Amino acid sequence: MKLNNLVGDRFKETPSDCVIDSHALMLRGAYMKNIASGIFSSYLPLRKITRKIEQIIREEMNLIDGQEVLFPVVLPASLWQESGRYETVGNELVRLNDRNNAPLVLGMTHEEAAVHLVREYGKTYNRYPFMIYQIQTKFRDEARPRGGLIRVREFTMKDAYSFHTSQDDLEKYYERCFKAYERIFSRIGLSDVISISSDSGMMGGNISHEFMLLSDIGEDSIVLCKECDYKVNSEAAENISYSKREDFSHELNLVHTPNMNTIEDICNFFNLGKEKSCKAVVYQKNTDDSYVILFIRGDMEVNETKLTNYLACDIRPAVITKESGLHAGYTGPYNLNTKHLVLFDKSLENSNNLICGGNIDNHHYTGLDITRDIGDIKYNDFAKIKEGGICPKCKNQSVTISKGIELGNIFQLGTKYTKAMNMQYTDKNGASGYPLMGCYGIGIERLAASVCEAHHDDYGPIWPMSIAPWQVHICAMRAEDTEVKNFADNLYNKLQEKGIEVIYDDRNVSAGIMFSDADLLGVPIRVIVSPRNIKENCCEIVKRDKSLQIKEPLESVLDKIYQLIK
Amino acid sequence: MKLNNLVGDRFKETPSDCVIDSHALMLRGAYMKNIASGIFSSYLPLRKITRKIEQIIREEMNLIDGQEVLFPVVLPASLWQESGRYETVGNELVRLNDRNNAPLVLGMTHEEAAVHLVREYGKTYNRYPFMIYQIQTKFRDEARPRGGLIRVREFTMKDAYSFHTSQDDLEKYYERCFKAYERIFSRIGLSDVISISSDSGMMGGNISHEFMLLSDIGEDSIVLCKECDYKVNSEAAENISYSKREDFSHELNLVHTPNMNTIEDICNFFNLGKEKSCKAVVYQKNTDDSYVILFIRGDMEVNETKLTNYLACDIRPAVITKESGLHAGYTGPYNLNTKHLVLFDKSLENSNNLICGGNIDNHHYTGLDITRDIGDIKYNDFAKIKEGGICPKCKNQSVTISKGIELGNIFQLGTKYTKAMNMQYTDKNGASGYPLMGCYGIGIERLAASVCEAHHDDYGPIWPMSIAPWQVHICAMRAEDTEVKNFADNLYNKLQEKGIEVIYDDRNVSAGIMFSDADLLGVPIRVIVSPRNIKENCCEIVKRDKSLQIKEPLESVLDKIYQLIK
Repeated sequence: MKLNNLVGDRFKETPSDCVIDSHALMLRGAYMKNIASGIFSSYLPLRKITRKIEQIIREEMNLIDGQEVLFPVVLPASLWQESGRYETVGNELVRLNDRNNAPLVLGMTHEEAAVHLVREYGKTYNRYPFMIYQIQTKFRDEARPRGGLIRVREFTMKDAYSFHTSQDDLEKYYERCFKAYERIFSRIGLSDVISISSDSGMMGGNISHEFMLLSDIGEDSIVLCKECDYKVNSEAAENISYSKREDFSHELNLVHTPNMNTIEDICNFFNLGKEKSCKAVVYQKNTDDSYVILFIRGDMEVNETKLTNYLACDIRPAVITKESGLHAGYTGPYNLNTKHLVLFDKSLENSNNLICGGNIDNHHYTGLDITRDIGDIKYNDFAKIKEGGICPKCKNQSVTISKGIELGNIFQLGTKYTKAMNMQYTDKNGASGYPLMGCYGIGIERLAASVCEAHHDDYGPIWPMSIAPWQVHICAMRAEDTEVKNFADNLYNKLQEKGIEVIYDDRNVSAGIMFSDADLLGVPIRVIVSPRNIKENCCEIVKRDKSLQIKEPLESVLDKIYQLIK
Repeated sequence: MKLNNLVGDRFKETPSDCVIDSHALMLRGAYMKNIASGIFSSYLPLRKITRKIEQIIREEMNLIDGQEVLFPVVLPASLWQESGRYETVGNELVRLNDRNNAPLVLGMTHEEAAVHLVREYGKTYNRYPFMIYQIQTKFRDEARPRGGLIRVREFTMKDAYSFHTSQDDLEKYYERCFKAYERIFSRIGLSDVISISSDSGMMGGNISHEFMLLSDIGEDSIVLCKECDYKVNSEAAENISYSKREDFSHELNLVHTPNMNTIEDICNFFNLGKEKSCKAVVYQKNTDDSYVILFIRGDMEVNETKLTNYLACDIRPAVITKESGLHAGYTGPYNLNTKHLVLFDKSLENSNNLICGGNIDNHHYTGLDITRDIGDIKYNDFAKIKEGGICPKCKNQSVTISKGIELGNIFQLGTKYTKAMNMQYTDKNGASGYPLMGCYGIGIERLAASVCEAHHDDYGPIWPMSIAPWQVHICAMRAEDTEVKNFADNLYNKLQEKGIEVIYDDRNVSAGIMFSDADLLGVPIRVIVSPRNIKENCCEIVKRDKSLQIKEPLESVLDKIYQLIK
């Protein structure tokens, strides 16, 4: 098409609210327009990109025997009540009522709908395994949409659901899907995506993986080991702390510590490292507002995902009231005398000579020996793993932490949904069982933005050929020149006849505007036709990624372009 | 793919709640599954059909210079407040709140979103005309979902919006889109769709057309003229009634008519035709519950669309209370003495010797001469046109009424939305103006169901090649026979290598099950491979529409199939 007709305004200035490059470049290039917090409309170039991504995903899903279906965006609440998630999922799930006051939800994921669709079909073992998938709009009422298309509320998702009669079969299929995901990321130009183990969160099940693009703008922390192949989302990473027990335990001693209610204050006061303190972190359960007091070594942070999983409910940082009986800043495990739930992190196991809160305002204990003074304690792992920490796999002190953007995830759900929704099959011997499920998601728009993150320069995105909105961008400089116009028009038509997608800029604008627009559109191959070139019987062919810049004789321009596209 | 792996259960019995053929056949063929009232999931065969329909529509929209975009399903209420429709549209528009209590709607149409997307782009005249479209999920909270996919609450829609700087330009583009629609319907196998003038309803604007498939199961009444080319949706059809005035007017006479409160009762009592009565039909406005009394000739029915348009608000049949001062069943125009709004249909103009309510319980007047007794009246057209009625165009008494399914609609919206949302452009001379809009919709699933309505037999749908889920269906009878299996396997592979979509039934089932499943899948070309045929060195090729049934020598089967597909 002609660039002159392309709807959308491109511009030079980075919008002030953009903190990441893909967001700024995709606004500047008129790929999208914000319509509400975390909700965007897409212009043609982005729609072309997302359609190509969708098609690549569709091909790969079909190759692993997936069957494309379509679930509704709006689902009856009853389905989510069957699975139990209507109650357990938070505000991300939009709940609404129809004109007859029947409760509905906006489907943020479709395990329930998948079970509903195949509950009858899957009644005998010989129909397994099978996989169904859809590419459809999802709405999740995220608390903090950010980063343009990286974290939005409405997006397009490919979600797939497989059904099996044995764990072994599920694992085999999981592996096939794993490989399909690798092919998908590779085909769209993200060959360096890594897969990591992850926390299954609200999805349920045990084994799950996330596919991550390492990127400083990512929201996920990824634990990598320098010595072995350990790769885990920090939410799911086990933390190992070497015991810091000293040979000799001092006696407990209550000390006046006026106005010292942070770990920093108190450790400075005693001139000790934070690892010699026992920190209290207090939460409240969202279900009943009850308090949870978690003691952890002072140099560690709480991994709230682990705590949430342990408690099986959502939590929030506590508001400590007088009625709670707690002394904010001075809570310690000795003489605590509380009815609240008290938990201990593994980092404290077997420690001694610790500072801890005195459970009296402005007082701390020193000399806490946790085994001697508290007695029988069950320790659990609630701590965040840290840079330089111990790898849970090879046990070396070799952990590094990187940021990543989650591009896809795969889960072995097991029988969580089929049991809850009573989907059963009969096996060879007439016995009945619950099928096992896997589920497999990819967000389309986030993928597009991530490709832009991975492939761009200061001037715009550098789209890979496989998903570029157009393959060839013709810049006809001074198209009022008959020779320029004739050659460019002819090239435009010839390429299109061959099924090549061409954007053709024959506007009467400066070279500066022409090239900055071309940079923003990020088309892989640019052909520059100008009066000067034509006089030299050639035109320039430039690749957007700067790997090529040549003058090609006019008679071989077409062949050269075909060759570059292949 | 192999039929053995196709997810979904096909069955023989017509479900008891199905009143139309496409609904029954598409359930029996496992095309879809109901998940809530008016909400369906699609299995693979339907998804393949809808994707093909989408692609045909996309190609035709691109041919008329449409640019594919994507609007959100969930829109901020503020956009609909800007246009005024947040208040004026009824319960079909789903209103909801997000986690921060911000009001949202589920976009049931996207004029507002379209204006939002191009409001800045369209600031100067030289960017016009342009058209943007999307193919996306819509949710409309219909009061009465029915007929399977014919009237649903959630569906996929292609909606397009064009922008112009003159009425002339809008009309030219409208005509192009009109022709694109004709090509779309023709390409998917509905070449006999007719276009009719329609009422613009909540969309606004003046000129609009609907594309209708004539069908007894249609919900729309279409007025056609036997003598001329008049074709109008009955909602929008002008009604012309010849005056039934008699030469001599009787005197008014109040008659005791105990318990006769229907037109039938009273006309029987006086032994007169209904056309000699003046009927009162009472409504209440939805906005303020106030009463509207409409008098109309007893043999006519009210066209509520005309009344709604006249009142510019939604109405409902009245509940007549004591406080209203009205006498239900005995309301007449003479001595009415009411503050309520009183309207007269044109059918009453200049009538005499009418029976009408006496405004006293159990009493009617006879001898009403509407001009003599009521005086100065403004008549409007509120009546439904009837079979055998007068054609508003050629004035012959040649009206026929058919039922039709609305497959698409196109509207000239004018400046309704651009004015309300203050989208302006600057013309050549620096003056500013509001662009004119057109909008153009097609519902995808309804289209699929309509093709099934138009093309089916008792055994299943007969899909046209252009949208069939597969092009070829191989039935391998007794696939345990090595020769059968080898030939069928080879045929399956060869066809797929050529890019032909094949469904391959090599199950160990009876011919009856094999053929009834094939009938339900409705694939255009069926190839039957059986031991007997193979012995005769041939196989059977059958077209689903029964136009062909041949025995083809094995060596030329492939060529014959290619030829049939072309």
